[in-house]
Formats: sequence, structure tokens, C-alpha cells
Amino acid sequence: MKNLFPLVIFLIILTDCNQAKVDFKAEEAAIMKTDSMWAALAREGADVNKIVSYWSDDAVVIAPGQPVVKGKAALLKMVTDSKNIPGFNISWRSANVNFSPDGKLAYLSSENLITMTDSAGKKISMPGRGYTIWRKEADGDWKCAVDIWNSPALSQ
Amino acid sequence: MKNLFPLVIFLIILTDCNQAKVDFKAEEAAIMKTDSMWAALAREGADVNKIVSYWSDDAVVIAPGQPVVKGKAALLKMVTDSKNIPGFNISWRSANVNFSPDGKLAYLSSENLITMTDSAGKKISMPGRGYTIWRKEADGDWKCAVDIWNSPALSQ
Repeated sequence: MKNLFPLVIFLIILTDCNQAKVDFKAEEAAIMKTDSMWAALAREGADVNKIVSYWSDDAVVIAPGQPVVKGKAALLKMVTDSKNIPGFNISWRSANVNFSPDGKLAYLSSENLITMTDSAGKKISMPGRGYTIWRKEADGDWKCAVDIWNSPALSQ
Repeated sequence: MKNLFPLVIFLIILTDCNQAKVDFKAEEAAIMKTDSMWAALAREGADVNKIVSYWSDDAVVIAPGQPVVKGKAALLKMVTDSKNIPGFNISWRSANVNFSPDGKLAYLSSENLITMTDSAGKKISMPGRGYTIWRKEADGDWKCAVDIWNSPALSQ
């Protein structure tokens, strides 16, 4: 029995260490797939609860010129309200996934386009560029925790 | 000799695992101290090279309505150019440090204020709120890798 003790400790530590091994290519594919599914749902704008489910519970969205929106309830209101904006549409594309060494936190650059129609029925397009920060939750799902963008240079 | 082998493996793994232990309070204090030293230097606006040294080599700065600035050379030009803007001053304060579980990547919320004087000598103030993303480099220093902000709501 005495001889088994180091072996048990060894196996416990080995198990703990193995958890630190990360398949970054698989994680990148998982985030990009999640993000593109999210973008498709947002573009459709139909299933508000499903759209909101991609954010973490404590997520923060900072749109230019708008109040900071924090938490699921506020995000649900934001998405619901956006459906009442005439001609509202949002689309985005993300790139450049950067991970923490443990593969549990990531940030992505993104380019987005919000369109709506003004009171005269004219289409307004507002391009943006920004970053999203993603966290791998305990269940293995990636959730967006921070979503911030601003307007590009006029000359760009 | 044969009996030493498991012990050696055990010690190697133990050493490796110990590296994963993080003192988050100490890391938070380190980032906040680094950030406030940086903010003080930026407010002074004197030592351009020192100011730029707080960004990682691949850092990206996205100021509202400005082209994306990426990399040390472009950041050095940005900071140098800002010194030629009449009455230019920048100040900021960061909060809410969020870490990856391994303590190697972090993001902070920030509030900033940029002031300058217009051609009539009138002071213009542009408040902003945003996020910075920090990376712990191999030498243990925290460097800012992403710096993005936008304008608050007019009613805020």
C-alpha cells in the first residue's frame, strides 16, 4: 500500500496537467462557427432569445453613442427594441482569433454593418470595426462577454 | 536507479503544474499599477518612446473615426503626431480587471478624456469608454495588446 501512494499522487497530477492541453485549431473553429451561426441569427432577427443566448450572463455591449448595455435582461431589451427600428439590420464578420495560453479566453476583431431607414424611407448604413471577447464556459460553450465597436475613419 | 524514475517524472510534472498557480490579486495590482503609470506618462506627453513601450509589439489601437493603428512603428507615429495637436491631452482610468483562468490574458474597462483646442482656441473635450486587452509577456511584464473606445451616449 505504501508504494501505491506516489503513484496515486502522480496520476492525480497527470490528470490535472492534461486538462491544460489545448487544441487551439479546434477551439478557433468552435468560436468561428459559433460566431457565424450567431451572425446568421442576428441578420434574420427572428429568434430574440436565441440571439441573446450567445452572450455570457454578464456580457457588456458598447455601441458607439449608445448607453452601455450589460447583462442578459438589458441585452434582451436591446435586441427586442432593435426589431422596432424601421429597416434595422445587422451583419458582421469576425477574424483574428487570439487565445490566452490556456485556451479559455479569446478575442476577435470584427467588422460590422448596421442599416436602417430614416423617416423619409432612405437607407442609412453605419459601418463599424471592433473587438469581441469570448470566454469558454464550464459547459464548454464559448460565450461573448464583451462586444465593442466604433466608426471607421471617413477616408477609409 | 529504477526506483528514481517515477520520482523524477513526478517532480517534472509538479514543477510544470506549479506554473499554473496564479496569484490573481498580485496580477491585478500589477496591471493596475502598470496602467496608472502609463496614464500618468501619457498625460504628461513628454517621453514618447516610454509611452509606446506599454503596448505589445503587435498592439492595435482603434480610436473612433480614426484609421486602425497597428504595431510599434505606427503607434510611435500616432503618439508623436498627437504632440503636434494644439492643446492635446489624454487621460484615462481603468477598472474591472478580468483574467483568463491561467492569468496570462486580461481585459479592463476604461474611461478616457481627450481634450484639444480648436482653431479659435476653444477647448474641445471628447469623453470615451472602452476596453483594453492585456497580455502577460514571457518576461512577466503586462503589455496592452488592444485599445478600443467609442463615444458615450449624448444623454449620459
